[in-house]
This record gives sequence, structure tokens and C-alpha cells, in this order.
Amino acid sequence: MTALERIAEWVTSNPPVTAARRAAATDAFVDTLACMVAGASDVSTLGAIAVASHADPRESAMCVDGAMRAPSSAALINGTAAHALDLDDNFIGAATHASAVLVPALLAAARQAGADGAALLDSYLVGLQVQREIGREIAAKHYTAGWHATSTIGQIGGAAAVAHLLGLDATRIVAAMSVAVSTASGLKWQFGTPVKPVHAGFAARSSVEAALFAQAGVAGRSDVLEGERGFAALYGAPHADWPTAPIDTSVAHAIEQPGLFPKLYPCCGSTHLAIDAVLDLLREHSFAAADVAEIVVTVLRPNAANLPYTHPENPTQARFSMQYALISALESGTVSMADFEPATVRERRTHPLLDRISVRTWSEKAERIMLDQGRTPHRVELTLTNGRKLDRQREVARGAVSEPFAPWEKRRKFTSLSGLSDAHYDAALRLAASPNIDAIERLLAAAIRLRNGAGE
Amino acid sequence: MTALERIAEWVTSNPPVTAARRAAATDAFVDTLACMVAGASDVSTLGAIAVASHADPRESAMCVDGAMRAPSSAALINGTAAHALDLDDNFIGAATHASAVLVPALLAAARQAGADGAALLDSYLVGLQVQREIGREIAAKHYTAGWHATSTIGQIGGAAAVAHLLGLDATRIVAAMSVAVSTASGLKWQFGTPVKPVHAGFAARSSVEAALFAQAGVAGRSDVLEGERGFAALYGAPHADWPTAPIDTSVAHAIEQPGLFPKLYPCCGSTHLAIDAVLDLLREHSFAAADVAEIVVTVLRPNAANLPYTHPENPTQARFSMQYALISALESGTVSMADFEPATVRERRTHPLLDRISVRTWSEKAERIMLDQGRTPHRVELTLTNGRKLDRQREVARGAVSEPFAPWEKRRKFTSLSGLSDAHYDAALRLAASPNIDAIERLLAAAIRLRNGAGE
Repeated sequence: MTALERIAEWVTSNPPVTAARRAAATDAFVDTLACMVAGASDVSTLGAIAVASHADPRESAMCVDGAMRAPSSAALINGTAAHALDLDDNFIGAATHASAVLVPALLAAARQAGADGAALLDSYLVGLQVQREIGREIAAKHYTAGWHATSTIGQIGGAAAVAHLLGLDATRIVAAMSVAVSTASGLKWQFGTPVKPVHAGFAARSSVEAALFAQAGVAGRSDVLEGERGFAALYGAPHADWPTAPIDTSVAHAIEQPGLFPKLYPCCGSTHLAIDAVLDLLREHSFAAADVAEIVVTVLRPNAANLPYTHPENPTQARFSMQYALISALESGTVSMADFEPATVRERRTHPLLDRISVRTWSEKAERIMLDQGRTPHRVELTLTNGRKLDRQREVARGAVSEPFAPWEKRRKFTSLSGLSDAHYDAALRLAASPNIDAIERLLAAAIRLRNGAGE
Repeated sequence: MTALERIAEWVTSNPPVTAARRAAATDAFVDTLACMVAGASDVSTLGAIAVASHADPRESAMCVDGAMRAPSSAALINGTAAHALDLDDNFIGAATHASAVLVPALLAAARQAGADGAALLDSYLVGLQVQREIGREIAAKHYTAGWHATSTIGQIGGAAAVAHLLGLDATRIVAAMSVAVSTASGLKWQFGTPVKPVHAGFAARSSVEAALFAQAGVAGRSDVLEGERGFAALYGAPHADWPTAPIDTSVAHAIEQPGLFPKLYPCCGSTHLAIDAVLDLLREHSFAAADVAEIVVTVLRPNAANLPYTHPENPTQARFSMQYALISALESGTVSMADFEPATVRERRTHPLLDRISVRTWSEKAERIMLDQGRTPHRVELTLTNGRKLDRQREVARGAVSEPFAPWEKRRKFTSLSGLSDAHYDAALRLAASPNIDAIERLLAAAIRLRNGAGE
């Protein structure tokens, strides 16, 4: 029994309540009511009121179910949806799912900011670079320690992005990022559960709200990253030492180097290098799944930790299984949404390769050197039933800056996931020229109508 | 320059944006839009929609500014307000401001749950006991490491409380607590800034929302507290080892032992033992502030860390200053709201005792033993100008279970903070017999009208 289960058992056991206990609890209620009233005009409370007041329908934003809601609710819903299938991009520069936080947050705040498409993109670039500036010093250690950087570093960058979109000054941008540090949370231990995508939703919402708190005059400590008991110290990277020279992106921006790593396979990014390596081998040596005797994959420890499900029992777990990913690649010649249908996952629970694919990690020393160099090589050693051995190492997954998807692959991903047409895709690509977010909302609305079976 | 300031400088420096960067950002936007649409029906997204849908006005709750808002907004606002002046109770059993999280969260969810007063109190008792069960193993280490336990442990207990109020079953109560772990955040490094009270608001909101996520079928790992990379490991208490025996509160409940520590002085709880000790000495030896040559206070390290402001510059910092607290006690014969008026804080910036009050800590070994025993003794050594030395150690502050406030003191706190009458206080004390929360909302509304100068 887990500690939480033990506690829940007690909660549901009808624990004894006495009059004395109720009286003590009444005192606590009454005392807190008085404190609430007395604190009603404090700057912190006024900030909370300001944040909640953006629930005003005039400030609403479109959600993926077609409803218009408050910016914070829209960010929560759309951020969760963006990350739900693990098909959204990775950003190795901060160990984040960068766009699943930044895009929903910026869309949610766009009307309030009166933003055009160019402003959205520029603020996106700000958010990504800020994720990078924070991630450069701590992402590897922080992520290895077990933090879901998407909802920690991700939202600090997101807060800067939204603050920039709202036109806040430097002091308030600092305040926004500091407030975001106060909500930085999310454990990788939740990977393989429906809570993981919600982390991205929380991060998108915190991005919006941290900027609104800052706009309302609520500020935290400006040294909250590097301070003695600040973010670095508490979140797994106590020796982080941020440089003090000005940030210079005139040569390379985070979106160029290290760049994003968009995904074609709807499963954990930690499987993608190995999937690509297996597909490389499949193309070059044309064998079939039935010809495979054994596969050994060598990855970094944080990657291995992301993939605890050697025998996945449902689609959510299957997305975090190296065994399942490679079986899908071998059986389907790619990895797609169809591989994560419940029936397919059920069927493959007895697949003979489940027991013959093993995951190893590099030596600690080798890994430390690789991480310091920003490298995350994975190796696939495949043995065929005829005894032949095939070997492939990959440093980047397909889709990354050095090996980008072809335009038709990007187009196909959009149209197949959204159900929308080529014309819609072309409209989406014209975002930089949009005078506002109307075109984006029209796209969303059309996709939602299609999904609901109403046609366009 | 801090790391955040450096980043904000860059953000506001008009960093170069090129067409290529915008095109790459457009790809990220478009890709994420497709992912959002594709993830719209995932259980995680449906959970986010369910949570946001409680913004429905029919489900609204009263906030301290008199407005009716969604439960999550009400919890955010009222939780922030409850903690804004640091006058709300402490709970040493979990190192939390227990009631500032539990009370606003339960009030916010009360209408949806159709709860009567007794149910609110019983769920409060559940939440407090759950905070205790988690805090028993980790609170001391976690808090000493630098976490603001109010918005970490506090909201896990809060989630259990709201889940209990909503009548969720054991599996969903586990899920609620697990989701709450995913939003556990808040650094003590933010103490002395307006972000600290917001931590309580976030925790109250997370309490409500975690229960709503669980109700919507979103569940995380049930071993998220003790798992290899779970809460204990990441939040400063890696060797926590929760017992597996059933929880038994038939003899003592958390509200009885260790019980709450409500406050009369509107400043950090880490000053209260010393304030009480100084007031004890004042009563017994009748000297004046001008007769004091020097004070040495010995506290535990986490307490010292909570009080970094030796020369506070504003009321927020003054609430986290031992020097300021003891000067207030000596000058006013108590510590009250008046001591934290901006003019008073300004005036005391040149007070001669500011440089003659010093804070020390017990030896590491002694402290470890004390914390293991659940003891937090503070010692005041006071030297008068005539050379006489006075010495007083305190283990509990006034207001605690072993030295409770007199009924008139509790009543006076309520009426003076809320501006309400004795009759209102009596009505509040009848909470256990209330058929719903109408009476509480009437009290709140009356206090708000008074504050706004509209009379009753």
C-alpha cells in the first residue's frame, strides 16, 4: 500500500469526529475568516483578484472544445491538449516541451494584448530563448534529478513570453518570471499517467497568470533563481552559475541552435532516436519484425528513467515504453497514432519481442561528458535470427535542425492530426502576416466542427 | 545583476528577429495547433475542461472583495487574503499555515458539494490530519531545505479535504492527492515579498482543482510521495519512510496534538516565541524599551532563515524581521497591525535597538535532536542598560493547545480584524449547526460592506 493509499483509506474510514474537535475546527474557520477579511486589500490579494478578474468573458479565448473561456482556463485546456499525445515538440535547450507551453499561453493572452501574428511569434521567440538561458545552466541536472522541466523551466520562459506580449517593462518581466518560479512543479515520476499532459496545461496557465500577477504589481525576489535557497538550490542544480554578460542572439537564436525537435511519432521523445535508428536499419537491410532475435538499446539515464514500462498495459503506458516503440517501428514501418489504439496495445501484450528488447545506459562518466557537451547519443544493437548483427548510433532524431522534416511531412502531420485541408495549412503558415488571432481561431473552430462530425 | 534581471534586460532590448526565425516559430505554432486539436479528447484534456468548466457562475463562491466567482478563483483570492497579513494560524505538525489553505478551499467547493457546516468542519479535520500524516515524515527536513510547506504539503492535505467534501471514493481521493503533488511548489526564499501570501492562494486553488481533476477521472501515480523520484526524493526528504499501519485518530487527532498555533501578532510565526518571551519578561520585571542594552535570540536554523531582514525597509519586510518584532513588542507592549503601518516602519528605521538585537541558532546536533522530538524552543537573553541579565526560553507560543488564548482574546481578534460585531462572532461559532454556507457568506458580505464604508 502506498502512503497516499494509506491516507485515503483513513479518509474514507469515517474517522472519529468529536464535539471538541469540531469546536477547535470552528475556531480555525472563524479565525481564518477574520484573517481573510483583514487581508482583502493587501497587494497580494489585489493581484489574485486581478488574475481572477480576467475570467471576464470579454477577455475570453478559444479552447480546443470550441468554447470561449477565460485566458487562464484556455491556457490550461489547450496546454494539456497540446501535450496529451506526446506529439508536440521537444526543446533540448531546456529539456522542455517548449511549444506546448508557449503557444497555448500566448494564444490565451493574445486578445488582451491586442497582439498580431508577428507579435505572437516574436514573443514565442522570447519565451524559447528565456527557456534556453535558464536551461543552459541547469536543465540536464534538473531533468536528471526527476523534474518535468516543461512545467518548471517551461513556464518561467512562458511568463517572460506573455509578459513581453503584454508589453510589460523589465521590472515587471522580472516579477512575472519570479512568480512563475513559485509555481514551478511537476515530477517526471508522473510520466505514463494522464497527469503528465496536465503539467503542460498548468505551465501554460502559470505563464499567463504570472504575467498578470506582475502586471497587477505583485513581485517576488529577483534573485529567486540563483539565491541561496532559490530555484537552482531546491530544484536539483545547486551549483548553477548563470553568466552575467548580456545575452547576445545576433549570431544564433535558441530556435536555430539547438533548435526544436518536432515529432512524428506520438510517444516519449526518449524513444525517438532509437526508433529512427531501427527505421534506418530496416530501410538499409530490409528485414522484418519476425527476423529480429534481440535488440539492445543504450541511452542516457534520464531517458531510461522516462521509460519504465517494459510491458505496457494501456496506451498511456505504451507511450513510455522503449519495447513498445521499437515493436511498433518494426511492425508498422513507422510509429503512428494507430499503434496506440487500445486494441493494438492489447494485442501486443504478448508480442515475443517484449522480452527481447533491453535498455542499457552509458557509464556515468561517459554520460556526464556527453551532457556537458549537450549530446544525447542513443545506440541500437540489433541481432537477427540468422545471427547477423546490425548497429546504429544516432545523435539527433529526425525533425531536428540538422535533419529537418520535408515540407510534405510537416504538411501531412498538420492535415492528418487536425483533419483540416491544405488550404488551412497554408493559412496557418501565414501567421506572421495576421493582424490578430482571428485566423487561428477560425482554424481551431473548423477542426473542432470536423471532429464533432459536423463537417466544415 | 540577478539572472532574472539579466534575462529581462535581454527581453526588453528588442532582440533581433529574422524572417527565418519567424518561419521556424511559425512551424512550432502550426505544429502545436495540430497537436492541440488531436489531443482535444484525451482524458487529461477532458480533465482540464472539467476543471475550467467550474467557472460556470452557477457554481460560484464569494470572494473577499464581495464578488461571486468560480470556485478556483475564489480559492485563489481568499487563500491569498487569509495569509496576506501573516495573522493566520500555523500548524507545526506539517510546518504549514494549515487553515489559510483548507478554509478557503472548502468554502469555495461548498456549494458544489451541497455541504453543510458539519461537513465543512469534518473535511477540515480530514485535511489537517492528512497534512499531519505527510508532514510527520518530511516536514522538518522539507521546510529546512527551503520549501514553503504551506503550498506543498498544505495543498496535498487540501486536496484530500475537498475530495472528501465532494464525496469522492478512495481511488479518487488518492488521485486528487497525486495531482496536488504535481503542483506542489513555493520557495521560502520568497518570504518578505507579496508572493508569499499568493502561495497560500495557489495552494487553496490547487486543493480545489486537484479534487476536480480526480472527479473528472484524471489520476497520477499513487506512489508519488515515496516513489524513487517522487515527492520525498525531490522535495528535500529523500529518506522519508511512511509507516504502513492504518492511521488511528481515536486517541488524538492532529487538531489536538500537536494542534494549531493561531496568532495574535501579524508577523512571521518564527518571531512569536521570542515576542512572547520578551512580553513575559516585560510583565515580570517592568522595564521599558529604553532600558534594553542588548538582546540575543537563539532559534532553529529554518526560523533564522525565515527572518533575513535585520533592517526592514517596508511593512512586508518588517513582518519577517526578528529585530522589528522585538522592538514592536518593547515599544507597544504587544505586536499589532499598528506596528506594520508604513509610517511606523519608516519611523523605526533608525531605532537604536535594530543593531543590538542579534539572532543565533542552536548547534546543528542540538537542533537535529529537537526537530526529531518535534520541539522548537527559542531563547531570549536580554541585557538591561543597568547590566542586569534576563533570560527566558519558550517551547510554545501563546495560542497553542497547551497555552490557549482566552475566549475574549479570540473574540477580540475576530471583531477587530473583521470590523464585525459580537453577534456576528457568535453566529460564526455556530458553524457546525449551519445547513449550508449562507451564514458564512452573509458574514463576509457584511464585513466587506463595512470595509467599503457602506455600513451594515
